[in-house]
Amino acid sequence: MTTKAYAAQSAKTPLTPHGITRRDPLPTDVQIEILYCGVCHSDLHQARDEWHDFAPTAYPCVPGHEIVGRVTKVGKDVKKFKAGDLAAVGCMVDSCRTCPSCAKGLEQYCTHFPTFTYNAPDKHSGGVTYGGYSDAIVVDEAFVLRVSEEANLAATAPLLCAGITTYSPLRHWKVGPGQKIGIVGLGGLGHMGVKFARAFGAHVVLFTTSPSKVEDGKRLGAHEVVVSKDAAAMKAHAGSFDFVLDAVSAEHDINAYLSLLKLDGTLCLVGAPEKPLPVAAFNLLLPRRSFAGSGIGGIAETQEMLDFCAERGIGSDVEVIPIQKINEAYDRLLKGDVKYRFVIDMASLKG
Amino acid sequence: MTTKAYAAQSAKTPLTPHGITRRDPLPTDVQIEILYCGVCHSDLHQARDEWHDFAPTAYPCVPGHEIVGRVTKVGKDVKKFKAGDLAAVGCMVDSCRTCPSCAKGLEQYCTHFPTFTYNAPDKHSGGVTYGGYSDAIVVDEAFVLRVSEEANLAATAPLLCAGITTYSPLRHWKVGPGQKIGIVGLGGLGHMGVKFARAFGAHVVLFTTSPSKVEDGKRLGAHEVVVSKDAAAMKAHAGSFDFVLDAVSAEHDINAYLSLLKLDGTLCLVGAPEKPLPVAAFNLLLPRRSFAGSGIGGIAETQEMLDFCAERGIGSDVEVIPIQKINEAYDRLLKGDVKYRFVIDMASLKG
Repeated sequence: MTTKAYAAQSAKTPLTPHGITRRDPLPTDVQIEILYCGVCHSDLHQARDEWHDFAPTAYPCVPGHEIVGRVTKVGKDVKKFKAGDLAAVGCMVDSCRTCPSCAKGLEQYCTHFPTFTYNAPDKHSGGVTYGGYSDAIVVDEAFVLRVSEEANLAATAPLLCAGITTYSPLRHWKVGPGQKIGIVGLGGLGHMGVKFARAFGAHVVLFTTSPSKVEDGKRLGAHEVVVSKDAAAMKAHAGSFDFVLDAVSAEHDINAYLSLLKLDGTLCLVGAPEKPLPVAAFNLLLPRRSFAGSGIGGIAETQEMLDFCAERGIGSDVEVIPIQKINEAYDRLLKGDVKYRFVIDMASLKG
Repeated sequence: MTTKAYAAQSAKTPLTPHGITRRDPLPTDVQIEILYCGVCHSDLHQARDEWHDFAPTAYPCVPGHEIVGRVTKVGKDVKKFKAGDLAAVGCMVDSCRTCPSCAKGLEQYCTHFPTFTYNAPDKHSGGVTYGGYSDAIVVDEAFVLRVSEEANLAATAPLLCAGITTYSPLRHWKVGPGQKIGIVGLGGLGHMGVKFARAFGAHVVLFTTSPSKVEDGKRLGAHEVVVSKDAAAMKAHAGSFDFVLDAVSAEHDINAYLSLLKLDGTLCLVGAPEKPLPVAAFNLLLPRRSFAGSGIGGIAETQEMLDFCAERGIGSDVEVIPIQKINEAYDRLLKGDVKYRFVIDMASLKG
């Protein structure tokens, strides 16, 4: 099946219309008409080959891994879905399914690497995978998520990456009532971090460099908002946090946030700054603290998160755009000019 | 009481004989005749004011916090000790005793800072504390440890810092049978890390930069020794460790050791390199890993460690020196020329 898509043809050129081929559904495959696709900063990094050393980009590159749509066809052995169901696809479309990580439902840490939704070797086509900036996708049902008919679909799309990436570490480190939790950075990930930490019952403090985001931080659920340039405010919070979720992808002073932790506290990084972060040893030694990282989440946990959001009416704050505005959206993303996630209305691709 | 000691009078001068005053025992104090005192790299850092920004040195400075001796006098309310008992003092001689850390027996993380054994404000004298390079010390019994009459006293002294500093994180992160544990660096701390990790039943892999230390690493208990410059050997161990204890105080590539960890593995730093350590974000994110730190240990755990060592016959590998050789020992320490801890025989101070 030939499918309309938007693709980058090189690191230096804007995304343009491009036709791709999707496989016909295999017995365990689900074919999905894509309704909405969120725009993640990773899409931009990959389209522009900014992770060249780590994950070089194969062109043409069709980004997009925050996919919500409706099932149009299923393979004969598919059990979880039928045509007409809502469905979602996140950052992965497959994994080895047998390694210790996969056995634990942590497919994102598959020791043979998961098959990412775009720019990964495609086991079926022999080429690379193509993401959600397209009008259809075909994915094995084991990597397709259920979506509630009551959900706001545009607001649900970003949950597939920004949502699970913040939900998973907050759950793993057992964030809950009685705890003081910091969220660093109010962007696509950070705003979901604030919503989840608040929903889990913690006392939530948002750290932002922008005084203009203070009110919005409170609206989203933060009990307190600290402008991180305010040295006195930072000092007042030193040594008082159980857990800090750091959602900043740009270069920043990690020691300033490590020093917020109390004994046995953890700072977990979910952004991926390009340059190494210098860590002062004494900041980890006294008192005993941990600097950790976490990447997206497993399929079972992603489903748990979607169900949790549907029950609580939690979604991302989004700005819906037609796909024709994707290059402009990338430019605005680089300026932090979005509250808090662009989502492509894929109907715009059909015209 | 006036006590003989060795002190640094400035950052640039060698240690020389110096008389200090110890308080008469208060009701809860224990007066100890010092028999052996280990030589820790911290002693050298402090004597030379190399931690100026963090903990500036007050001169004269009497280092030494690996102290073993015999009780000569006790205050009237002392319950745990009587004259003639063996006793030991480690890195701390007091703390606030009421903060949450102290309440948990983690006095080393006292939120008001513990009173370190040397170069700390002395609550009693109004000056600073003086350490174990002296023939006597007076310490509140709450910070004095019991020592078995069967113990090798010279080999026991380094347990008070090098021992507990490695024992505590191995216990905290529950190192035991079925686990693969890395120890980085074979020095005063590292050689105790190897002994403890082996005693706790783990599979122990020592990482060293020195091919000449391979045999010694095995003698001390390592199942495998990897020369860290051997890229192929390092790669063969990637992603396979449950826990890595990093006992290197010099600048080194922390990312090379973080990449040894499997999912949910922790690398714990116990050395304190002067310069910040650059950490690559992807090394923490995929798979989920932690970079932690740990400082010495609490009083109860230090006693537990001394008892464990006495039962198992575990001690430090030491080179006993007279105090007159302390400056030469510092020079050799800087070259790594000691297997694996200098210990001062304090009888040499009496002559």
